[in-house]
Amino acid sequence: MKIAIVGGTGEQGPGLALRWALAGEEVVIGSRSQERAEKVAAELNGELGQDRIRGLENARAAEAAEVVVLTVPYSAHLSTIESVRSQVQDKIFVDVSVPLDPEYPRRMKMPPAGSATEEAQAALGPSTRVVAAFQNIAAHLLRDPTHAIDCDVLVCGNDLEAKKTVMSLVGKMGLQAYDAGPAESARVIEGLTSILIRLNIRHKVKGAGIRLAGLPR
Amino acid sequence: MKIAIVGGTGEQGPGLALRWALAGEEVVIGSRSQERAEKVAAELNGELGQDRIRGLENARAAEAAEVVVLTVPYSAHLSTIESVRSQVQDKIFVDVSVPLDPEYPRRMKMPPAGSATEEAQAALGPSTRVVAAFQNIAAHLLRDPTHAIDCDVLVCGNDLEAKKTVMSLVGKMGLQAYDAGPAESARVIEGLTSILIRLNIRHKVKGAGIRLAGLPR
Repeated sequence: MKIAIVGGTGEQGPGLALRWALAGEEVVIGSRSQERAEKVAAELNGELGQDRIRGLENARAAEAAEVVVLTVPYSAHLSTIESVRSQVQDKIFVDVSVPLDPEYPRRMKMPPAGSATEEAQAALGPSTRVVAAFQNIAAHLLRDPTHAIDCDVLVCGNDLEAKKTVMSLVGKMGLQAYDAGPAESARVIEGLTSILIRLNIRHKVKGAGIRLAGLPR
Repeated sequence: MKIAIVGGTGEQGPGLALRWALAGEEVVIGSRSQERAEKVAAELNGELGQDRIRGLENARAAEAAEVVVLTVPYSAHLSTIESVRSQVQDKIFVDVSVPLDPEYPRRMKMPPAGSATEEAQAALGPSTRVVAAFQNIAAHLLRDPTHAIDCDVLVCGNDLEAKKTVMSLVGKMGLQAYDAGPAESARVIEGLTSILIRLNIRHKVKGAGIRLAGLPR
């Protein structure tokens, strides 16, 4: 599957790119700057030992892909969505964003839509199928593809088939995905991230996450 | 510690009562009807093989305790709080409520305050220290005290000492508690319950829960 990671040179993009490339997916890293995208892609290909990840400007990356993943800080959420709006129509759009309060990241500052995911769905319109995923996985855990991650991925969105596709892509990384319901569930999933950040700080760790218990794996 | 479980004859009260009684705490089951409270207390004492749980009308149960736990369906949330309002002043009040949509319990219907916990804090006033806990533990798991529960308890509230007391009471049941931050975090913790209900239905299980990963236990 062709996957673009828009804003993919930041914290979570490189780890997702590496893990999907290792699973045999075709990955394009997107950035506002094509040069920056190419540079990060080259670094990741160096780690992989082969050229499997390309770098393109965000809109061209989105255009080249079937599934478009957004990994930008929340401050760039709506502007980045606007910059790829026409390229993601009729595609699956995976929102990894978490609307943390920029002044106090242990706290959420939810947008009027209720969550970043619902905001993205409203901004992109009904023909783009928005799915939330990966909000609760620490970036540095994703970034080291030689280590298994002891966390599950809650996935939500209003389109069942799109969720199934994303859950399969989560599974290809060796992670377990669970369908947490409609886009509205993103209020909980995104909100969990601020609780995990708080627990990281309190317990002086970096990779707090959640696992589901009592369910088939 | 003297613990009252207001609305304690319902789904979650008996399990909490049994587990705390087994841990040596002094437990009073509260109900709107003293007769009903006494009946459930007698049943639980029968299981324990000794008289360690009392039954009283809700307000008298709350009056007799240092820590008051509320376990009623959300439809009775505010009315029950009002019925014990004066008895819980200057005490710790543990809210276990989840504002599920009565017409569709896989969905939340959050009160204007943001969560049941914040609603309780607003209704009881600042001298009652409201703490959220146990929202994500299935009642039937609590009810069987011979079985360990493979789930963690997220605790939140605006008073640190009150949270510490509640976390210690969680620990006495053999469960691990984590401090999830201020009362506002209850929006996430209560919301998680609807996701767990959804996962229970989808996977045809009854006890989906969460565990925290990457943290000291």
